[in-house]
Amino acid sequence: MKSLVVKCILSLLLLASAAFAADPLPSWNDTAPKKAIIAFVEQVTNEASPNFVPPAERIATFDNDGTLWSEQPIYFPQAFTFDRIKALAPQHPEWKDKQPFSAVLEGDINTFRAFDERALLELEIAAHAGNTTEEYAQIVRDWVATAKHPKTGRLYKEMVYQPMLELLTYLRASGFKTFICSGGWIDFMRPWTEKVYGIPPEQIIGSSLKTKFELRNGEPVLALLPEISFITDNVNKPVGINQHIGRRPVAAFGNSDGDLQMLQWTVARKGASFALLVHHTDAEREWAYDRKSSIGRLDKALDVARAKGWTIVDMKNDWKIIYVLEKK
Amino acid sequence: MKSLVVKCILSLLLLASAAFAADPLPSWNDTAPKKAIIAFVEQVTNEASPNFVPPAERIATFDNDGTLWSEQPIYFPQAFTFDRIKALAPQHPEWKDKQPFSAVLEGDINTFRAFDERALLELEIAAHAGNTTEEYAQIVRDWVATAKHPKTGRLYKEMVYQPMLELLTYLRASGFKTFICSGGWIDFMRPWTEKVYGIPPEQIIGSSLKTKFELRNGEPVLALLPEISFITDNVNKPVGINQHIGRRPVAAFGNSDGDLQMLQWTVARKGASFALLVHHTDAEREWAYDRKSSIGRLDKALDVARAKGWTIVDMKNDWKIIYVLEKK
Repeated sequence: MKSLVVKCILSLLLLASAAFAADPLPSWNDTAPKKAIIAFVEQVTNEASPNFVPPAERIATFDNDGTLWSEQPIYFPQAFTFDRIKALAPQHPEWKDKQPFSAVLEGDINTFRAFDERALLELEIAAHAGNTTEEYAQIVRDWVATAKHPKTGRLYKEMVYQPMLELLTYLRASGFKTFICSGGWIDFMRPWTEKVYGIPPEQIIGSSLKTKFELRNGEPVLALLPEISFITDNVNKPVGINQHIGRRPVAAFGNSDGDLQMLQWTVARKGASFALLVHHTDAEREWAYDRKSSIGRLDKALDVARAKGWTIVDMKNDWKIIYVLEKK
Repeated sequence: MKSLVVKCILSLLLLASAAFAADPLPSWNDTAPKKAIIAFVEQVTNEASPNFVPPAERIATFDNDGTLWSEQPIYFPQAFTFDRIKALAPQHPEWKDKQPFSAVLEGDINTFRAFDERALLELEIAAHAGNTTEEYAQIVRDWVATAKHPKTGRLYKEMVYQPMLELLTYLRASGFKTFICSGGWIDFMRPWTEKVYGIPPEQIIGSSLKTKFELRNGEPVLALLPEISFITDNVNKPVGINQHIGRRPVAAFGNSDGDLQMLQWTVARKGASFALLVHHTDAEREWAYDRKSSIGRLDKALDVARAKGWTIVDMKNDWKIIYVLEKK
């Protein structure tokens, strides 16, 4: 019996490794980032390597906006908030003449972009608070199923990066547990990340409103309160990751200064580690932006990455295709 | 190739089910709770059953103190705090004449038990804040490896319940992801729960201090601040579970009024669910307490469980053995 089990497991492992031996990252050009990723994975999974990492410690954390999907001309979670504000506007006639609401209702992106943190949070709270977590999840699911990007005409969920999907799959097949740690709202991501990225709700870390346990029509529910619980960006990414996972990641993936501390904290672990920045260099197939961008600003982190020798993905040169479903 | 994979997977599944068909819960007497657990697991894993639950949704949450291990005469995490306060006392001569510290230093459990929440938190903060999360984890590991219970003389980690270990294993083998949601400190549990319960750090939910990302000797670390982040008890158990997991549990296990809302929220999900209370009825092999206990008070939840027909474990009658390693 035992030998049958061993044979079976060996056969399955061989099949799995054979499948990947072909090419685990077919949408990546054969440039430095792909080589660095594969070399890293081969080392941490090789028991004979000094860089071996036991499976239980193989934690990989990914930023979402700009790292797993696009983020222009506004963060996609903000596009969702825009649509919610518009849907709720008939119940709030006072919004028409009141910022930050009127900019949203008029679709005035330039004014919107100039808003400070406080104005943005006022919008988010107005759009989301009051719902139960389950009502909110349904609103998100409905939006994700239908909402389209103004420039590409694609569903937002079809603007996820095919190369990053392959990377997620490759890491999981190599024993990694993949997490998202995004400054975006946790309740916005959870309803769709499992289907789209293969990352279940319990592996999503993000900003959140406070919730309250209460009875509605005799049923216990969690209501979203008009109060911020935590914003998982910048120095708070390591804080959120530790709170949620309780281990330092072995590998971390980002695209902006908001990811810098997550990457720094990751590479400072004892033992092997990997840090990667997605650099948006492809004005034709996606967008080109970095240092001065109001969205996904990549300024300080780019210098650190270059100084430290982290892997930098030049989207234009390193990726054969950008979006999921796209023909080569 | 494909048929080989299918054959292998089928063989492995058959072996796994054969192993459990023998008896998944050998330390449980053949009484109602064991039958209820097995009936529940068989239904939710049977695709032909109306109560089938897809594997991704099979979330089980367990309270820790009093549910997975003992909690008398004081919660074991508090015993750890006691020992930390004693170890730190030489640096704090003022503690000798100052409550709540002097009660701890004198081992005066009765005075300690009468402390209010605020005094208890003052102790916890004094014992833990200032360390980095990784320093703190090492202190916990050292304590768990050596600290013994004053009454039984066992290591605290040997006072975990063998029947509950079997239940955790059975649920995991049935496709469940097992989590702890405890009012105890998350940083106290994470360093040892993987070895002792098979539950990794990322599946632990608990009370926490705030942490701060900072550089110490040029290395990025997270420092524990002298400030509470969240206490995951009572109505905050569902809040903590949602924040961490993002799904309602299908099954929840507790032993006190502090677990009531977690159980209520669980059984209110759409579809199959399971709620279980461990009732401490065995004064000889463990402790007998419920309604008036200052530790693990089981008053309101016992009435609700009886009224709703939840499963109640009578430790004296339903468990063949109590502790791990104990002979039958």
